[in-house]
Amino acid sequence: MPRFRLSLEYDGTDFLGWQVQAPGARTVQGTLESAATLLFGQPVAVTGAGRTDAGVHAEGQVASLAADTGLDGPEIRKALNAGLPGDLVVLSCRPAADGFDPRRDARSKLYRYQFWNGPERSPLRRRRWYRVPGTLDVDAMGRAARAFEGHHDFASLQSTGSSVRSTARSLSCCKVVAAGGEIRLFVEGSGFLRHMIRTLAGTLLQVGQGRRTADSMAGLLAAADRASAGPTAPAHGLTLVAVRYPGDGDDSVVNPGA
Amino acid sequence: MPRFRLSLEYDGTDFLGWQVQAPGARTVQGTLESAATLLFGQPVAVTGAGRTDAGVHAEGQVASLAADTGLDGPEIRKALNAGLPGDLVVLSCRPAADGFDPRRDARSKLYRYQFWNGPERSPLRRRRWYRVPGTLDVDAMGRAARAFEGHHDFASLQSTGSSVRSTARSLSCCKVVAAGGEIRLFVEGSGFLRHMIRTLAGTLLQVGQGRRTADSMAGLLAAADRASAGPTAPAHGLTLVAVRYPGDGDDSVVNPGA
Repeated sequence: MPRFRLSLEYDGTDFLGWQVQAPGARTVQGTLESAATLLFGQPVAVTGAGRTDAGVHAEGQVASLAADTGLDGPEIRKALNAGLPGDLVVLSCRPAADGFDPRRDARSKLYRYQFWNGPERSPLRRRRWYRVPGTLDVDAMGRAARAFEGHHDFASLQSTGSSVRSTARSLSCCKVVAAGGEIRLFVEGSGFLRHMIRTLAGTLLQVGQGRRTADSMAGLLAAADRASAGPTAPAHGLTLVAVRYPGDGDDSVVNPGA
Repeated sequence: MPRFRLSLEYDGTDFLGWQVQAPGARTVQGTLESAATLLFGQPVAVTGAGRTDAGVHAEGQVASLAADTGLDGPEIRKALNAGLPGDLVVLSCRPAADGFDPRRDARSKLYRYQFWNGPERSPLRRRRWYRVPGTLDVDAMGRAARAFEGHHDFASLQSTGSSVRSTARSLSCCKVVAAGGEIRLFVEGSGFLRHMIRTLAGTLLQVGQGRRTADSMAGLLAAADRASAGPTAPAHGLTLVAVRYPGDGDDSVVNPGA
Protein backbone atom coordinates (compact mmCIF):
# COMPACT_ATOMS: atom_id res chain seq x y z
CA MET A 1 0.00 0.00 0.00
CA PRO A 2 1.46 3.41 -0.91
CA ARG A 3 2.56 5.46 2.09
CA PHE A 4 2.56 9.26 2.32
CA ARG A 5 4.19 11.91 4.44
CA LEU A 6 1.98 14.90 5.32
CA SER A 7 2.97 18.29 6.67
CA LEU A 8 0.26 19.91 8.81
CA GLU A 9 -0.66 23.30 10.22
CA TYR A 10 -3.27 23.68 12.94
CA ASP A 11 -4.67 26.12 15.45
CA GLY A 12 -4.68 24.00 18.61
CA THR A 13 -7.20 26.18 20.48
CA ASP A 14 -10.23 24.00 19.81
CA PHE A 15 -8.50 20.60 19.67
CA LEU A 16 -8.04 18.28 22.65
CA GLY A 17 -4.51 17.67 21.41
CA TRP A 18 -3.08 15.38 18.75
CA GLN A 19 -3.89 11.94 20.00
CA VAL A 20 -7.20 10.10 19.65
CA GLN A 21 -8.77 9.74 23.08
CA ALA A 22 -12.30 8.96 24.20
CA PRO A 23 -14.98 8.89 21.47
CA GLY A 24 -16.33 12.37 20.82
CA ALA A 25 -13.12 14.15 21.86
CA ARG A 26 -12.05 16.43 19.00
CA THR A 27 -8.39 15.64 18.27
CA VAL A 28 -6.14 16.41 15.30
CA GLN A 29 -5.37 12.74 14.69
CA GLY A 30 -9.05 11.79 14.90
CA THR A 31 -10.13 14.59 12.57
CA LEU A 32 -7.50 13.53 10.01
CA GLU A 33 -8.39 9.84 10.28
CA SER A 34 -12.07 10.61 9.72
CA ALA A 35 -11.30 12.69 6.63
CA ALA A 36 -8.89 10.05 5.25
CA THR A 37 -11.30 7.18 5.94
CA LEU A 38 -14.05 9.05 4.10
CA LEU A 39 -11.73 9.89 1.18
CA PHE A 40 -10.31 6.40 0.69
CA GLY A 41 -13.40 4.40 1.63
CA GLN A 42 -11.34 2.27 4.01
CA PRO A 43 -10.17 2.66 7.62
CA VAL A 44 -6.96 4.73 7.60
CA ALA A 45 -4.60 5.15 10.56
CA VAL A 46 -2.62 8.39 10.86
CA THR A 47 0.54 8.61 12.98
CA GLY A 48 2.26 11.88 13.96
CA ALA A 49 5.78 13.04 14.76
CA GLY A 50 4.81 14.84 17.97
CA ARG A 51 1.86 14.18 20.26
CA THR A 52 1.01 17.82 20.89
CA ASP A 53 -1.05 18.51 24.03
CA ALA A 54 -4.49 20.10 24.05
CA GLY A 55 -4.17 23.75 22.98
CA VAL A 56 -0.70 23.41 21.40
CA HIS A 57 -0.43 24.70 17.83
CA ALA A 58 1.55 23.44 14.83
CA GLU A 59 3.07 25.18 11.83
CA GLY A 60 4.84 22.04 10.60
CA GLN A 61 3.65 18.85 12.30
CA VAL A 62 4.47 15.75 10.22
CA ALA A 63 2.17 12.75 9.89
CA SER A 64 2.04 9.53 7.92
CA LEU A 65 -0.71 7.42 6.40
CA ALA A 66 -0.96 4.47 4.03
CA ALA A 67 -3.91 3.89 1.72
CA ASP A 68 -4.78 1.71 -1.24
CA THR A 69 -5.12 4.57 -3.72
CA GLY A 70 -4.08 5.70 -7.18
CA LEU A 71 -4.12 9.36 -6.12
CA ASP A 72 -0.80 11.19 -5.96
CA GLY A 73 0.38 13.47 -3.14
CA PRO A 74 -1.04 16.78 -4.39
CA GLU A 75 -4.38 15.11 -5.19
CA ILE A 76 -4.58 13.64 -1.67
CA ARG A 77 -3.68 17.02 -0.13
CA LYS A 78 -6.40 18.77 -2.09
CA ALA A 79 -9.05 16.12 -1.40
CA LEU A 80 -8.26 15.93 2.33
CA ASN A 81 -8.29 19.72 2.69
CA ALA A 82 -11.75 19.88 1.12
CA GLY A 83 -12.99 17.80 4.05
CA LEU A 84 -10.99 19.37 6.88
CA PRO A 85 -12.21 22.20 9.16
CA GLY A 86 -10.76 25.73 9.05
CA ASP A 87 -8.38 25.15 11.95
CA LEU A 88 -6.52 22.23 10.31
CA VAL A 89 -4.84 21.96 6.91
CA VAL A 90 -2.52 19.62 5.01
CA LEU A 91 0.32 21.85 3.73
CA SER A 92 1.98 19.12 1.66
CA CYS A 93 1.66 15.42 0.89
CA ARG A 94 4.38 13.38 -0.74
CA PRO A 95 5.29 9.71 -1.15
CA ALA A 96 7.22 8.16 1.76
CA ALA A 97 9.20 4.96 2.15
CA ASP A 98 7.09 1.95 3.14
CA GLY A 99 8.44 1.82 6.69
CA PHE A 100 8.35 5.62 7.30
CA ASP A 101 7.56 6.42 10.95
CA PRO A 102 7.25 10.20 11.45
CA ARG A 103 8.07 9.99 15.16
CA ARG A 104 10.91 7.45 15.21
CA ASP A 105 12.56 8.64 11.99
CA ALA A 106 12.61 12.34 12.91
CA ARG A 107 16.09 13.81 13.22
CA SER A 108 14.80 16.75 15.27
CA LYS A 109 11.74 18.75 16.19
CA LEU A 110 11.71 22.51 16.62
CA TYR A 111 9.27 24.11 19.07
CA ARG A 112 8.63 27.78 19.86
CA TYR A 113 7.18 29.06 23.14
CA GLN A 114 5.77 32.61 23.11
CA PHE A 115 5.56 34.95 26.12
CA TRP A 116 3.80 38.32 25.85
CA ASN A 117 5.43 40.80 28.25
CA GLY A 118 3.77 44.03 27.08
CA PRO A 119 2.32 46.55 29.54
CA GLU A 120 -1.23 45.17 29.12
CA ARG A 121 -2.87 41.93 28.04
CA SER A 122 -3.18 41.70 24.25
CA PRO A 123 -6.51 40.63 22.69
CA LEU A 124 -4.85 39.97 19.33
CA ARG A 125 -2.19 37.73 20.92
CA ARG A 126 -4.40 35.94 23.41
CA ARG A 127 -4.67 32.67 21.45
CA ARG A 128 -0.93 32.11 20.92
CA TRP A 129 0.96 34.10 23.58
CA TYR A 130 1.20 33.47 27.31
CA ARG A 131 0.86 36.86 28.96
CA VAL A 132 3.34 37.64 31.71
CA PRO A 133 3.07 41.00 33.52
CA GLY A 134 5.94 42.71 35.31
CA THR A 135 9.57 43.28 34.42
CA LEU A 136 11.54 40.32 33.09
CA ASP A 137 15.33 39.93 32.91
CA VAL A 138 15.43 38.61 29.35
CA ASP A 139 19.23 38.37 29.32
CA ALA A 140 19.16 36.08 32.34
CA MET A 141 16.49 33.93 30.63
CA GLY A 142 18.76 33.65 27.59
CA ARG A 143 21.78 32.61 29.67
CA ALA A 144 19.70 30.07 31.57
CA ALA A 145 18.31 28.63 28.32
CA ARG A 146 21.81 27.92 26.99
CA ALA A 147 22.47 25.64 30.00
CA PHE A 148 19.95 23.15 28.63
CA GLU A 149 21.75 22.74 25.29
CA GLY A 150 23.58 19.45 24.81
CA HIS A 151 23.00 15.99 26.27
CA HIS A 152 21.46 15.94 29.76
CA ASP A 153 19.20 13.98 32.05
CA PHE A 154 15.98 16.02 31.83
CA ALA A 155 14.10 14.11 34.58
CA SER A 156 13.53 17.41 36.44
CA LEU A 157 11.49 18.75 33.52
CA GLN A 158 9.30 15.68 33.02
CA SER A 159 5.72 15.76 34.31
CA THR A 160 5.18 13.48 37.29
CA GLY A 161 3.60 10.13 36.58
CA SER A 162 5.49 9.61 33.32
CA SER A 163 7.34 6.34 32.79
CA VAL A 164 9.99 6.19 30.10
CA ARG A 165 13.08 4.00 29.94
CA SER A 166 15.51 6.88 29.86
CA THR A 167 15.08 10.55 30.71
CA ALA A 168 18.27 11.55 28.86
CA ARG A 169 17.69 13.81 25.85
CA SER A 170 19.76 16.06 23.59
CA LEU A 171 18.91 19.66 22.71
CA SER A 172 20.70 21.15 19.71
CA CYS A 173 19.22 24.59 20.43
CA CYS A 174 17.64 26.32 23.41
CA LYS A 175 17.53 30.05 22.77
CA VAL A 176 15.59 33.16 23.81
CA VAL A 177 14.81 35.92 21.28
CA ALA A 178 13.11 39.11 22.50
CA ALA A 179 11.67 42.03 20.52
CA GLY A 180 9.48 44.63 22.18
CA GLY A 181 7.22 42.78 24.59
CA GLU A 182 7.42 39.58 22.51
CA ILE A 183 9.72 36.93 23.97
CA ARG A 184 10.23 33.71 22.00
CA LEU A 185 11.90 30.58 23.30
CA PHE A 186 13.15 28.22 20.56
CA VAL A 187 13.89 24.62 21.54
CA GLU A 188 15.14 22.02 19.09
CA GLY A 189 15.99 18.41 19.92
CA SER A 190 15.69 14.82 18.78
CA GLY A 191 13.12 13.94 21.42
CA PHE A 192 11.30 15.37 24.43
CA LEU A 193 9.80 14.14 27.67
CA ARG A 194 6.17 14.80 28.57
CA HIS A 195 5.57 18.55 29.19
CA MET A 196 9.35 19.10 28.98
CA ILE A 197 9.26 22.28 26.90
CA ARG A 198 6.39 23.85 28.85
CA THR A 199 8.19 23.08 32.14
CA LEU A 200 11.40 24.50 30.68
CA ALA A 201 9.44 27.62 29.70
CA GLY A 202 7.91 27.93 33.17
CA THR A 203 11.34 27.55 34.76
CA LEU A 204 12.98 30.14 32.50
CA LEU A 205 10.14 32.51 33.34
CA GLN A 206 11.07 32.24 37.03
CA VAL A 207 14.63 33.15 36.06
CA GLY A 208 13.29 36.19 34.23
CA GLN A 209 11.31 37.14 37.33
CA GLY A 210 14.42 36.89 39.52
CA ARG A 211 13.06 33.93 41.45
CA ARG A 212 15.91 31.68 40.21
CA THR A 213 19.40 32.51 39.00
CA ALA A 214 20.56 31.73 35.49
CA ASP A 215 23.42 29.63 36.82
CA SER A 216 21.16 27.41 38.92
CA MET A 217 20.05 25.39 35.88
CA ALA A 218 22.84 22.81 36.06
CA GLY A 219 21.93 22.04 39.66
CA LEU A 220 18.26 21.82 38.71
CA LEU A 221 19.08 19.16 36.10
CA ALA A 222 21.41 17.31 38.49
CA ALA A 223 18.60 17.03 41.06
CA ALA A 224 16.63 14.83 38.61
CA ASP A 225 13.49 15.77 40.51
CA ARG A 226 10.37 17.44 39.06
CA ALA A 227 9.95 19.39 42.28
CA SER A 228 13.19 21.27 41.59
CA ALA A 229 11.81 22.88 38.39
CA GLY A 230 9.22 25.63 37.83
CA PRO A 231 5.55 25.32 36.89
CA THR A 232 4.36 23.98 33.53
CA ALA A 233 3.63 27.00 31.31
CA PRO A 234 0.20 27.03 29.59
CA ALA A 235 -0.25 25.09 26.35
CA HIS A 236 -1.51 27.95 24.17
CA GLY A 237 1.96 29.58 24.08
CA LEU A 238 3.53 26.53 22.42
CA THR A 239 3.87 25.80 18.69
CA LEU A 240 5.48 22.82 16.94
CA VAL A 241 7.33 24.72 14.21
CA ALA A 242 9.05 22.02 12.15
CA VAL A 243 10.14 18.39 12.09
CA ARG A 244 13.33 17.50 10.28
CA TYR A 245 14.32 14.16 8.71
CA PRO A 246 17.64 12.79 7.42
CA GLY A 247 18.06 13.64 3.76
CA ASP A 248 15.65 16.60 3.88
CA GLY A 249 18.40 19.01 2.85
CA ASP A 250 19.23 22.35 4.29
CA ASP A 251 16.12 24.05 2.93
CA SER A 252 14.10 22.37 5.67
CA VAL A 253 16.17 23.99 8.39
CA VAL A 254 14.21 26.66 10.17
CA ASN A 255 16.35 29.51 11.45
CA PRO A 256 15.70 29.53 15.18
CA GLY A 257 16.57 33.20 15.29
CA ALA A 258 13.88 34.14 12.78
CA MET B 1 -16.12 66.88 33.91
CA PRO B 2 -12.61 65.43 33.34
CA ARG B 3 -12.13 64.01 29.86
CA PHE B 4 -9.82 61.11 28.93
CA ARG B 5 -8.20 59.75 25.81
CA LEU B 6 -8.07 55.95 25.57
CA SER B 7 -5.98 53.76 23.30
CA LEU B 8 -7.63 50.41 22.49
CA GLU B 9 -6.72 47.03 21.08
CA TYR B 10 -9.39 44.55 19.98
CA ASP B 11 -9.90 41.36 18.05
CA GLY B 12 -12.80 42.31 15.77
CA THR B 13 -13.85 38.73 15.00
CA ASP B 14 -16.72 38.57 17.47
CA PHE B 15 -17.77 42.26 17.41
CA LEU B 16 -20.43 43.72 15.10
CA GLY B 17 -18.09 46.64 14.53
CA TRP B 18 -17.37 49.77 16.53
CA GLN B 19 -20.65 51.60 16.55
CA VAL B 20 -23.63 50.94 18.82
CA GLN B 21 -26.50 49.55 16.76
CA ALA B 22 -29.65 47.68 17.69
CA PRO B 23 -29.95 46.58 21.34
CA GLY B 24 -28.24 43.24 21.87
CA ALA B 25 -25.71 43.74 19.06
CA ARG B 26 -22.21 43.26 20.52
CA THR B 27 -20.16 46.31 19.51
CA VAL B 28 -16.87 47.74 20.77
CA GLN B 29 -18.42 51.09 21.63
CA GLY B 30 -21.34 49.44 23.44
CA THR B 31 -19.07 47.11 25.41
CA LEU B 32 -16.92 50.06 26.49
CA GLU B 33 -19.93 52.21 27.42
CA SER B 34 -21.38 49.42 29.53
CA ALA B 35 -18.08 48.93 31.39
CA ALA B 36 -17.65 52.71 31.89
CA THR B 37 -21.24 53.20 33.04
CA LEU B 38 -20.79 50.41 35.58
CA LEU B 39 -17.45 51.82 36.76
CA PHE B 40 -18.57 55.44 37.17
CA GLY B 41 -22.15 54.77 38.26
CA GLN B 42 -23.43 57.23 35.65
CA PRO B 43 -24.24 56.97 31.92
CA VAL B 44 -20.98 57.45 29.97
CA ALA B 45 -20.75 58.07 26.22
CA VAL B 46 -17.66 56.84 24.38
CA THR B 47 -16.65 58.24 20.98
CA GLY B 48 -14.06 56.70 18.67
CA ALA B 49 -11.59 57.91 16.06
CA GLY B 50 -12.61 55.33 13.46
CA ARG B 51 -15.91 53.49 13.08
CA THR B 52 -14.41 50.11 12.26
CA ASP B 53 -16.74 47.68 10.47
CA ALA B 54 -17.82 44.30 11.83
CA GLY B 55 -14.79 41.98 11.85
CA VAL B 56 -12.16 44.74 11.58
CA HIS B 57 -9.42 44.63 14.24
CA ALA B 58 -7.56 47.42 16.06
CA GLU B 59 -4.09 47.67 17.53
CA GLY B 60 -4.41 51.37 18.30
CA GLN B 61 -7.97 52.69 18.07
CA VAL B 62 -8.43 55.92 20.02
CA ALA B 63 -11.55 56.78 22.02
CA SER B 64 -12.70 59.50 24.38
CA LEU B 65 -14.94 59.62 27.42
CA ALA B 66 -15.83 62.15 30.11
CA ALA B 67 -16.81 61.17 33.64
CA ASP B 68 -17.29 62.82 37.00
CA THR B 69 -14.47 60.95 38.71
CA GLY B 70 -11.44 61.43 40.94
CA LEU B 71 -9.66 58.45 39.36
CA ASP B 72 -6.57 59.17 37.26
CA GLY B 73 -5.81 57.66 33.83
CA PRO B 74 -3.95 54.52 34.93
CA GLU B 75 -6.62 53.81 37.58
CA ILE B 76 -9.38 54.09 34.97
CA ARG B 77 -7.45 51.84 32.57
CA LYS B 78 -7.01 49.19 35.23
CA ALA B 79 -10.62 49.36 36.45
CA LEU B 80 -12.10 49.27 32.93
CA ASN B 81 -9.90 46.34 31.90
CA ALA B 82 -11.10 44.35 34.90
CA GLY B 83 -14.60 44.55 33.42
CA LEU B 84 -13.78 44.09 29.74
CA PRO B 85 -13.83 40.76 27.86
CA GLY B 86 -10.67 39.04 26.55
CA ASP B 87 -11.03 40.41 23.03
CA LEU B 88 -10.96 44.10 24.08
CA VAL B 89 -8.46 46.03 26.19
CA VAL B 90 -7.62 49.62 27.13
CA LEU B 91 -3.89 50.00 26.42
CA SER B 92 -3.61 53.48 27.88
CA CYS B 93 -5.78 56.21 29.40
CA ARG B 94 -4.65 59.80 29.86
CA PRO B 95 -6.21 63.21 30.45
CA ALA B 96 -7.46 65.00 27.34
CA ALA B 97 -8.50 68.58 26.65
CA ASP B 98 -12.13 69.31 27.40
CA GLY B 99 -13.14 69.56 23.75
CA PHE B 100 -11.10 66.56 22.55
CA ASP B 101 -12.84 64.74 19.68
CA PRO B 102 -10.89 61.61 18.68
CA ARG B 103 -12.33 61.57 15.17
CA ARG B 104 -12.25 65.26 14.23
CA ASP B 105 -8.95 66.03 15.93
CA ALA B 106 -7.00 63.10 14.41
CA ARG B 107 -4.12 64.15 12.17
CA SER B 108 -4.04 60.73 10.49
CA LYS B 109 -5.07 57.11 10.82
CA LEU B 110 -2.92 54.19 9.74
CA TYR B 111 -4.58 50.97 8.55
CA ARG B 112 -3.02 47.67 7.48
CA TYR B 113 -4.70 45.16 5.16
CA GLN B 114 -3.27 41.62 5.18
CA PHE B 115 -3.38 39.14 2.28
CA TRP B 116 -2.18 35.56 2.70
CA ASN B 117 -0.82 34.26 -0.61
CA GLY B 118 0.81 31.00 0.57
CA PRO B 119 0.33 27.72 -1.30
CA GLU B 120 -2.45 26.60 1.06
CA ARG B 121 -4.96 28.22 3.39
CA SER B 122 -3.45 28.93 6.82
CA PRO B 123 -5.37 27.93 9.98
CA LEU B 124 -3.13 30.11 12.15
CA ARG B 125 -3.73 33.17 9.92
CA ARG B 126 -7.43 32.63 9.24
CA ARG B 127 -8.68 35.28 11.68
CA ARG B 128 -6.55 38.17 10.41
CA TRP B 129 -5.45 37.36 6.84
CA TYR B 130 -7.53 37.25 3.67
CA ARG B 131 -6.38 34.18 1.79
CA VAL B 132 -5.76 34.63 -1.92
CA PRO B 133 -4.69 31.59 -3.98
CA GLY B 134 -2.76 31.78 -7.25
CA THR B 135 0.22 33.81 -8.35
CA LEU B 136 0.19 37.54 -7.62
CA ASP B 137 2.29 40.26 -9.24
CA VAL B 138 3.27 42.00 -6.01
CA ASP B 139 5.43 44.60 -7.79
CA ALA B 140 2.44 45.69 -9.88
CA MET B 141 0.33 45.94 -6.71
CA GLY B 142 3.00 48.17 -5.18
CA ARG B 143 3.15 50.45 -8.22
CA ALA B 144 -0.64 50.68 -8.33
CA ALA B 145 -0.79 51.51 -4.61
CA ARG B 146 1.50 54.51 -5.06
CA ALA B 147 -1.00 56.05 -7.49
CA PHE B 148 -3.42 56.60 -4.60
CA GLU B 149 -0.97 58.68 -2.58
CA GLY B 150 -1.71 62.41 -2.44
CA HIS B 151 -4.95 64.35 -2.71
CA HIS B 152 -7.63 62.74 -4.91
CA ASP B 153 -11.36 62.34 -5.38
CA PHE B 154 -11.89 58.81 -4.01
CA ALA B 155 -15.58 58.52 -5.05
CA SER B 156 -14.74 55.34 -7.00
CA LEU B 157 -13.68 53.61 -3.79
CA GLN B 158 -16.70 54.61 -1.70
CA SER B 159 -19.42 52.04 -1.07
CA THR B 160 -22.64 52.83 -2.89
CA GLY B 161 -25.36 54.50 -0.86
CA SER B 162 -22.95 56.71 1.11
CA SER B 163 -23.65 60.42 1.28
CA VAL B 164 -20.85 62.75 2.32
CA ARG B 165 -20.31 66.37 1.38
CA SER B 166 -16.98 65.74 -0.33
CA THR B 167 -15.34 62.56 -1.55
CA ALA B 168 -11.89 64.18 -1.76
CA ARG B 169 -9.34 62.70 0.66
CA SER B 170 -5.55 62.76 1.13
CA LEU B 171 -3.37 59.70 1.60
CA SER B 172 0.12 60.30 2.98
CA CYS B 173 1.06 56.64 2.45
CA CYS B 174 -0.24 53.76 0.35
CA LYS B 175 2.34 51.02 0.23
CA VAL B 176 2.63 47.26 -0.31
CA VAL B 177 5.15 45.19 1.67
CA ALA B 178 5.55 41.49 0.86
CA ALA B 179 7.50 38.77 2.68
CA GLY B 180 7.02 35.13 1.82
CA GLY B 181 3.30 34.60 1.25
CA GLU B 182 2.44 37.53 3.54
CA ILE B 183 1.40 40.70 1.69
CA ARG B 184 0.65 43.81 3.74
CA LEU B 185 -0.97 46.97 2.43
CA PHE B 186 -0.37 50.07 4.59
CA VAL B 187 -2.67 53.04 4.09
CA GLU B 188 -2.37 56.27 6.06
CA GLY B 189 -4.54 59.33 5.64
CA SER B 190 -6.43 62.03 7.44
CA GLY B 191 -9.83 60.57 6.65
CA PHE B 192 -11.50 57.78 4.70
CA LEU B 193 -14.77 57.13 2.91
CA ARG B 194 -16.96 54.16 3.79
CA HIS B 195 -15.27 50.85 2.82
CA MET B 196 -12.55 52.87 1.05
CA ILE B 197 -9.57 50.82 2.25
CA ARG B 198 -11.25 47.46 1.70
CA THR B 199 -12.25 48.54 -1.83
CA LEU B 200 -8.73 49.80 -2.43
CA ALA B 201 -7.44 46.39 -1.26
CA GLY B 202 -9.86 44.52 -3.51
CA THR B 203 -8.82 46.69 -6.47
CA LEU B 204 -5.09 46.20 -5.85
CA LEU B 205 -5.71 42.47 -5.63
CA GLN B 206 -7.13 42.55 -9.16
CA VAL B 207 -3.95 44.32 -10.26
CA GLY B 208 -1.92 41.52 -8.65
CA GLN B 209 -4.03 38.96 -10.51
CA GLY B 210 -3.39 40.69 -13.84
CA ARG B 211 -7.03 41.69 -14.23
CA ARG B 212 -6.13 45.41 -14.13
CA THR B 213 -2.92 47.23 -14.96
CA ALA B 214 -0.97 49.24 -12.41
CA ASP B 215 -1.24 52.37 -14.54
CA SER B 216 -5.04 52.20 -14.78
CA MET B 217 -5.49 53.58 -11.24
CA ALA B 218 -5.52 57.26 -12.27
CA GLY B 219 -8.33 56.55 -14.75
CA LEU B 220 -10.21 54.59 -12.10
CA LEU B 221 -10.12 57.60 -9.77
CA ALA B 222 -11.06 59.99 -12.57
CA ALA B 223 -14.19 57.93 -13.33
CA ALA B 224 -15.56 58.81 -9.85
CA ASP B 225 -17.79 55.74 -10.12
CA ARG B 226 -17.89 52.81 -7.68
CA ALA B 227 -18.48 50.45 -10.62
CA SER B 228 -15.01 51.24 -11.97
CA ALA B 229 -13.25 49.75 -8.89
CA GLY B 230 -12.81 46.18 -7.70
CA PRO B 231 -14.76 44.27 -5.03
CA THR B 232 -14.67 45.17 -1.32
CA ALA B 233 -12.12 42.86 0.33
CA PRO B 234 -13.32 41.00 3.46
CA ALA B 235 -13.24 42.80 6.82
CA HIS B 236 -11.12 40.28 8.74
CA GLY B 237 -7.95 41.26 6.80
CA LEU B 238 -8.13 44.88 8.04
CA THR B 239 -6.57 46.37 11.19
CA LEU B 240 -6.62 49.96 12.47
CA VAL B 241 -2.97 50.25 13.51
CA ALA B 242 -2.66 53.74 14.93
CA VAL B 243 -4.26 57.16 15.16
CA ARG B 244 -2.02 60.21 15.31
CA TYR B 245 -2.76 63.63 16.80
CA PRO B 246 -1.02 67.00 16.55
CA GLY B 247 1.58 67.32 19.26
CA ASP B 248 1.94 63.56 19.80
CA GLY B 249 5.61 63.71 18.86
CA ASP B 250 7.54 61.45 16.57
CA ASP B 251 7.43 58.49 18.92
CA SER B 252 3.81 57.95 17.92
CA VAL B 253 4.73 57.51 14.27
CA VAL B 254 4.37 53.91 13.25
CA ASN B 255 6.82 52.86 10.56
CA PRO B 256 4.61 51.69 7.73
CA GLY B 257 7.40 49.49 6.46
CA ALA B 258 7.69 47.58 9.73
